[in-house]
Amino acid sequence: MTNSAPAPLAPSDRLLCGPGPTNVDPVALAAMGKPMLGHLDPDIQPILLEVVRMLRLVYRNAEGLVLPLQATGTSGMEAGLLNLTEPGDTVIVGASAYFGRRIVELARRAGCEVVEVMEDWGVHVPNGRLLEALDENPAATLLAVVHGETSTGSLHPLAELGEALKDRPDTLLMADCVTTLGGTEIDIAGWGVDYAYSCTQKCIGAPPGMSPISVSEAGMERFAARSTPVPFSFDFELLRKYWIDRPPVYHHTAPILHIYALYEVLRATLEEGVDARCARHVAAGTHLQERVLAAGLSLIAEPDHQLPQLSAVAVPQGIDAKAVQSELLLEHGIEVGGGLPGAPPMWRIGLMGPNATTQTADRVFDALMAVLETKGAPVSA
Amino acid sequence: MTNSAPAPLAPSDRLLCGPGPTNVDPVALAAMGKPMLGHLDPDIQPILLEVVRMLRLVYRNAEGLVLPLQATGTSGMEAGLLNLTEPGDTVIVGASAYFGRRIVELARRAGCEVVEVMEDWGVHVPNGRLLEALDENPAATLLAVVHGETSTGSLHPLAELGEALKDRPDTLLMADCVTTLGGTEIDIAGWGVDYAYSCTQKCIGAPPGMSPISVSEAGMERFAARSTPVPFSFDFELLRKYWIDRPPVYHHTAPILHIYALYEVLRATLEEGVDARCARHVAAGTHLQERVLAAGLSLIAEPDHQLPQLSAVAVPQGIDAKAVQSELLLEHGIEVGGGLPGAPPMWRIGLMGPNATTQTADRVFDALMAVLETKGAPVSA
Repeated sequence: MTNSAPAPLAPSDRLLCGPGPTNVDPVALAAMGKPMLGHLDPDIQPILLEVVRMLRLVYRNAEGLVLPLQATGTSGMEAGLLNLTEPGDTVIVGASAYFGRRIVELARRAGCEVVEVMEDWGVHVPNGRLLEALDENPAATLLAVVHGETSTGSLHPLAELGEALKDRPDTLLMADCVTTLGGTEIDIAGWGVDYAYSCTQKCIGAPPGMSPISVSEAGMERFAARSTPVPFSFDFELLRKYWIDRPPVYHHTAPILHIYALYEVLRATLEEGVDARCARHVAAGTHLQERVLAAGLSLIAEPDHQLPQLSAVAVPQGIDAKAVQSELLLEHGIEVGGGLPGAPPMWRIGLMGPNATTQTADRVFDALMAVLETKGAPVSA
Repeated sequence: MTNSAPAPLAPSDRLLCGPGPTNVDPVALAAMGKPMLGHLDPDIQPILLEVVRMLRLVYRNAEGLVLPLQATGTSGMEAGLLNLTEPGDTVIVGASAYFGRRIVELARRAGCEVVEVMEDWGVHVPNGRLLEALDENPAATLLAVVHGETSTGSLHPLAELGEALKDRPDTLLMADCVTTLGGTEIDIAGWGVDYAYSCTQKCIGAPPGMSPISVSEAGMERFAARSTPVPFSFDFELLRKYWIDRPPVYHHTAPILHIYALYEVLRATLEEGVDARCARHVAAGTHLQERVLAAGLSLIAEPDHQLPQLSAVAVPQGIDAKAVQSELLLEHGIEVGGGLPGAPPMWRIGLMGPNATTQTADRVFDALMAVLETKGAPVSA
């Protein structure tokens, strides 16, 4: 191990059109260059409370607890399971692909009995099957689904599920909104979602670094009634005190520059309008998907359950998926994602945050076609 | 809740001389403006591995696992306890102040039986008392101390403790290096520390956002032998695979811009030299402490166990500590910390990272004296 300093960083420019991170909104980058306040500065509390107010508008949830964890999206998933279940609880999970199956694994680590309701990659788990599982396991304390499956581009009919669970108050509803927050219509309170989590590096357009979460009042009551402790890092009540109440209590040192970035992208979201932002994601994604299908390629998700902002394109037979990805990256400067472990061969194309435009859709599609033509793929751009 | 966007962020300039965060090194800010790569980009792995190599040099640990968690310093503490203990384990904790007592709380949440070895605020826990506790609890699987107590400025004689534990391999040694990494000589492998954790916003000089950790080979063996699961977010083996091996596995989306910042401050640290950087922290802190004592003020920590980079100054009788802090902030633009809950009245003055200079020491000391004079404090600047 040499002691010498390495060369300065000199990363290449990339158009990030994979499943995330997306390119960072310039307003977020500008915010991170502003003077950094201490995390207990009297001027920081209004900033924290504005971030919370804006997150509540994007999640559409005025009650319970809403704040960004200093954690990954997966830690947002884990925080929900650890705070809202206790060892031995039965949890029902709709697991059609990678992130649904990750909920299963994390719930087992939390000591839960897990009822998996499985479907094949790209097929959403019908709400009827989830409700049947609940009828068979009426004591289940939590039912979890993935609103937008980042591994396949499949969109779960969450509003309908929330409606069906409204007469089952003892079963909390948890939803993975990692890929949907800021890009797809969400109505957390209206739909009765008790716990939602997301990230900052997809449709929100900030860098990776935090996980915005939303807990319903019923979720907070469930937390308050628990008999076993949770990890200090994820303790909802300690986080609430630190972020919202701010008495003389110290929980952690908030990631101030990342909070600045989040503040400014949320501010830009409100200026654009949440509905208009979602419509922009729909327009860009639909445009890409129409061109994909017109070229004779196919999509992994069911047409009626296709996320706009993430298109999982099936790799034509005989084509080396990784070689195409690599050529897109190295020759065109464009990142698209591959399939996650266990998934069928696919390219995952994300149009999120600042990249949710039809111009970007055309740029990535045209580059993909150009690469596929060099590989002799049977496509007609 | 109005739907309107708030005003753009306009934070004031501050000289951050509290217990952390410190002002961000300009090289870190510049790094965060560079083009963001995806977390699975082929160009990202060399960056991750360089960060790990440089962290190994600062921790002085070539074995086991070294990497930065995307988590708070407190989560670094919790990750160690969750990975290296199992429920029912006996853990000995040297707890003389706030962060030692936090280890006690987090170990209890992890299901451990905790033997607390307490001392009063500012008094370090003598190694003899820790070793006596170990003689009384020979089955203890872990012994934890705080190397640099951020709540009092007390420095633990960690090298001596490590030496004494070398014939007790069944008891792992854990050390809180949140305030010492990058500012105080550390020799994690030489001293036999099995788990150390820190943060990025103090002597390292990056923004808050990650927790660099160091696990010994023995610590990794202890992890591998465990019979109960750990939270996915903190699982040492999954983190190792994602950060180091990088097979086609997905754990989380790394906070790329923060990693850029960390890369550049570590690079600057190696260019300065780790020893020279520690000497700079000693020179600045000693200068401040000499002026504090010469003015007739006193320090909370014992003189023989005083951290250079954090000076906890006792508040003279009759002086309103918070009013002084507030005037320093609002009239002089200088942040100093107060005492944490339960602590005696104090101001905590940090000279860390880019602020570890005698010039900054003079600036904050002169401002403190000016404020104290307006309050009629019996000091002689």
